[in-house]
Amino acid sequence: MAVQMIAGFPSTSGDDFQLNTITLLKNADATYPEVEIVDRNLDGSMFRYTYKEAYTRVKKLANALKRMGVKPGDRVGVIEFNTHRFFELYFAISGIGAVLVQINPRISNHDRAYVINHSGVSFLFVNEFMVSLVEPYAQELKQVKKYVVISERPFEDVSTALTPRAGFEEILGAESHEYDWEMIDETSAFSACYTSGTTGLPKGVFYSHRAIYLHTMTAAVNLKISSRDVVMQTVPMFHCHGWGFFFAAAMVGAKLVFPGLYTAETTNVLVDMMVAEKVTVNCGAPAIFLPMLEYIKTLPKRPDFTGLRMASGATEPSITLMKGFWEFGRVEIIHAYGATETAPFVTANLRKPSLDNLSSEEQWELKKKQGLPVSGLDFRVVDSKGEEVPHDGSTVGELLVRGPWITTSYYNDERTKDSFVDGYWKSGDGGTIDENGFFKIADRFKDLIKSGGEWISSIDLENAIMGHPDVLEASVVGIEHPKWEERPLALVVLRNKESEGEALKKGIYELLAKRFARWQFPDDIVFVEEIPKTSVGKFSKKEIRASYKDFYTGSTNK
Amino acid sequence: MAVQMIAGFPSTSGDDFQLNTITLLKNADATYPEVEIVDRNLDGSMFRYTYKEAYTRVKKLANALKRMGVKPGDRVGVIEFNTHRFFELYFAISGIGAVLVQINPRISNHDRAYVINHSGVSFLFVNEFMVSLVEPYAQELKQVKKYVVISERPFEDVSTALTPRAGFEEILGAESHEYDWEMIDETSAFSACYTSGTTGLPKGVFYSHRAIYLHTMTAAVNLKISSRDVVMQTVPMFHCHGWGFFFAAAMVGAKLVFPGLYTAETTNVLVDMMVAEKVTVNCGAPAIFLPMLEYIKTLPKRPDFTGLRMASGATEPSITLMKGFWEFGRVEIIHAYGATETAPFVTANLRKPSLDNLSSEEQWELKKKQGLPVSGLDFRVVDSKGEEVPHDGSTVGELLVRGPWITTSYYNDERTKDSFVDGYWKSGDGGTIDENGFFKIADRFKDLIKSGGEWISSIDLENAIMGHPDVLEASVVGIEHPKWEERPLALVVLRNKESEGEALKKGIYELLAKRFARWQFPDDIVFVEEIPKTSVGKFSKKEIRASYKDFYTGSTNK
Repeated sequence: MAVQMIAGFPSTSGDDFQLNTITLLKNADATYPEVEIVDRNLDGSMFRYTYKEAYTRVKKLANALKRMGVKPGDRVGVIEFNTHRFFELYFAISGIGAVLVQINPRISNHDRAYVINHSGVSFLFVNEFMVSLVEPYAQELKQVKKYVVISERPFEDVSTALTPRAGFEEILGAESHEYDWEMIDETSAFSACYTSGTTGLPKGVFYSHRAIYLHTMTAAVNLKISSRDVVMQTVPMFHCHGWGFFFAAAMVGAKLVFPGLYTAETTNVLVDMMVAEKVTVNCGAPAIFLPMLEYIKTLPKRPDFTGLRMASGATEPSITLMKGFWEFGRVEIIHAYGATETAPFVTANLRKPSLDNLSSEEQWELKKKQGLPVSGLDFRVVDSKGEEVPHDGSTVGELLVRGPWITTSYYNDERTKDSFVDGYWKSGDGGTIDENGFFKIADRFKDLIKSGGEWISSIDLENAIMGHPDVLEASVVGIEHPKWEERPLALVVLRNKESEGEALKKGIYELLAKRFARWQFPDDIVFVEEIPKTSVGKFSKKEIRASYKDFYTGSTNK
Repeated sequence: MAVQMIAGFPSTSGDDFQLNTITLLKNADATYPEVEIVDRNLDGSMFRYTYKEAYTRVKKLANALKRMGVKPGDRVGVIEFNTHRFFELYFAISGIGAVLVQINPRISNHDRAYVINHSGVSFLFVNEFMVSLVEPYAQELKQVKKYVVISERPFEDVSTALTPRAGFEEILGAESHEYDWEMIDETSAFSACYTSGTTGLPKGVFYSHRAIYLHTMTAAVNLKISSRDVVMQTVPMFHCHGWGFFFAAAMVGAKLVFPGLYTAETTNVLVDMMVAEKVTVNCGAPAIFLPMLEYIKTLPKRPDFTGLRMASGATEPSITLMKGFWEFGRVEIIHAYGATETAPFVTANLRKPSLDNLSSEEQWELKKKQGLPVSGLDFRVVDSKGEEVPHDGSTVGELLVRGPWITTSYYNDERTKDSFVDGYWKSGDGGTIDENGFFKIADRFKDLIKSGGEWISSIDLENAIMGHPDVLEASVVGIEHPKWEERPLALVVLRNKESEGEALKKGIYELLAKRFARWQFPDDIVFVEEIPKTSVGKFSKKEIRASYKDFYTGSTNK
């Protein structure tokens, strides 16, 4: 959708000068050539070089790409860990006007083949330890002209069925370290990432140079990243370009730390690098931060992380987690909200001076929220009529957002029409804004219950019911209702079947009365042996809704 | 000059979403409505309101402008002190797509009339205490359709010959506080500022929305401005939009402090506000900071300015000045470089971690330099052949710069051809870059002496010669030379005429030998009664060069 706009008086500014990602590295090379980039090799040893050396390799890589036949607009796939080579690929591929397609090693082969083919990848870089993620379906990748294997070892030691192929270090070897970067129209795609939605095939988001450049500045402003910081790239670089932290580091000339290969089971390597390299900015999610904290507590020498800020996404960080890190030098976990479609920064939980007089416990509670919208976006939480909800911390609406780094469509995908409206991305997330402007996700929108024009959060009800000592599990869904459109129904599994009965129901409703209005209560509570779950262990609300769809229409309205 | 660029693959990002200045205030209103804006009334009392109230008045002002007949593209002049009303005008005028023309109250009536007419101002806002800066030539301002007098008093109490006229508060009064902002093409001018060059008529720079938006983010990144800061707008808002500090404050939701009317003689009001409002970010120049420091030292209660950063422009801050402020809470004076043509940030003297091991005296010496180029610009210091000079801290070249917030022409002005080349602004400033990337201005380029392809700094020579106890004043100029193109000549005024003679010359050369190579010495030293000066007391090098132009060609080469 083209945006309507008015033209004013012409300026004399250099408006033709395009926002190009390579500018970030060019400037780091010119002004911070001595600053270090550290990468953890697979054997655990450290690789170290500088922005100057990185830039030299990026120029060689750009020449190598050109020699291979990569042209502006071509899509170049990458399957790699968080390494300095991935960093180089980001700058070299986008620098020559091609598109780096981020390929998720964790999705199914079927979906990965779809991403590679749908995006039109014609050159594919893949780490030698992940070739098996491509080999099984390589014959289906008709558009791929060449594979480049990324390895720390000499190319002849690498064995793979992918062909034709070359080695990353080998193609760089002979190239010149001079490259005359052309200016690229800033609306050209610099990279692409596919959403890994729970239903259907992945959907393609192609980020422009302009989007990522502005997003990088936004990240630097909100986390106050400067040349005095040491930035660790923990978020996977195949996932929404690792939230762009390495770009922000390059912009300000901060030391960069790449952890290489790690998993949720080996987060101790992250902690060890944080201590050794004196990391001050990190990014991740509670699922990673929690085992990190457990490991930190076991260290013989208590580390001091003074000055450390950690952007945290995915789910609400618990107060225990936040307080746990705070103990090691007033570490700040900054809850942030975003998605593949938003590049990702939309909100960040920054501390407002006007709330400094809140009690310590209120402050911790506040820090769980998704936070304040970052500047530069058109951020709206709207009711079913499209009107913005009041800033009361309780009225739930759906988040719609548009702006320079927000996607306005999926690449070549029919499903675009379901997720975008008037240039806004429909997040599918229901949330509230409180009187201080803090956004809080109540629920995935499809899990919200719409009763008489008002929204009820199923997650909040579930959490409250699970607070009852006799309850093992609880799931709340919205069931069709003749008068109220939908009404909540609770399914409850008890710790001990003996306690079942009206007395227990009464006890649960008494518990709910502490936090909810009567109209928000589930109309009924059903005790069950088991709640249907999906393959990844989440409640299968779809299945519950199907099983109980006539529960309120077929029976008497309470 | 159109920039050559290549197009890549289309993105799915919201690239149509324009960078508009009003977005900064809209977001402050939505997310930081409670944050305070403080302004000093003329009687010294404080006016206080919030971003929310400011935004409400801006919307009323936008409606008032429309009602008066201001259309997108129209130029609206403003002559005002640093007040909340100037702040409102910046957002309202640019918000409706018109151009705020910054009018300098310190230039001559002749030049001011030129600026108003040349820029095509059709509506003129003027503070009641500055109407006399317009009245004498109002009949020459044929394009001005209406004057709006800015006053704290009721309009009927204001007396002026300007007509037709209205009162600022009066035009706001009846307007609605609803305004539906249209999106403005970001390459449209948001404001204009005219250079006050030492020769010729002022030259017009029309900044685009895009330029100022990106510049605002750059200022926030480099000074790490956040919602926890209190930003004081000390640099005059008629001069390169006060370096845009109030924009950066709005972007991050920082408390804002406007000092209203002050002069170099009344900087104590600035200090008093800094103490009372707990200012943490300020901007200015040594000429303002020096009297502030003197006043701070006299305060009965020693203030604590912990956390304060002050961006300092115009001239090198002395170590005495920087150390003086440092005593009051490790205050950082950050030397920055820029000009009207550059919006203005080009460099900022940030502390590099790699130089933390320098001695304290070396650090202070380093802080005098103009500093490190900010990210996002194409910054080149070039020799006469257009080649970049080595980063050796001694080779002088001319600074050329281009980028999204750098001007590429003067509005409707023949002199454009002298100051721009291939999209670069030719600064006319000669400088060096040291091995750590720090830029230092050696001289205005026209005051540099070009000898045998090398540059010699006249200012450095002058300072050295004036270090001799017998010397009262010294001026060094480049004089045409048959072999070396130019050679330096020194004019010296002695404290006591009796000391004149060859022995003294020898003494001066011995002094120079401590800092300069022989080839950099003036070929001759002429003792004079007086050195010609300009009306503002600077050495008139033009006149000196004219008087001595045959000095080396007409006489024997030494």
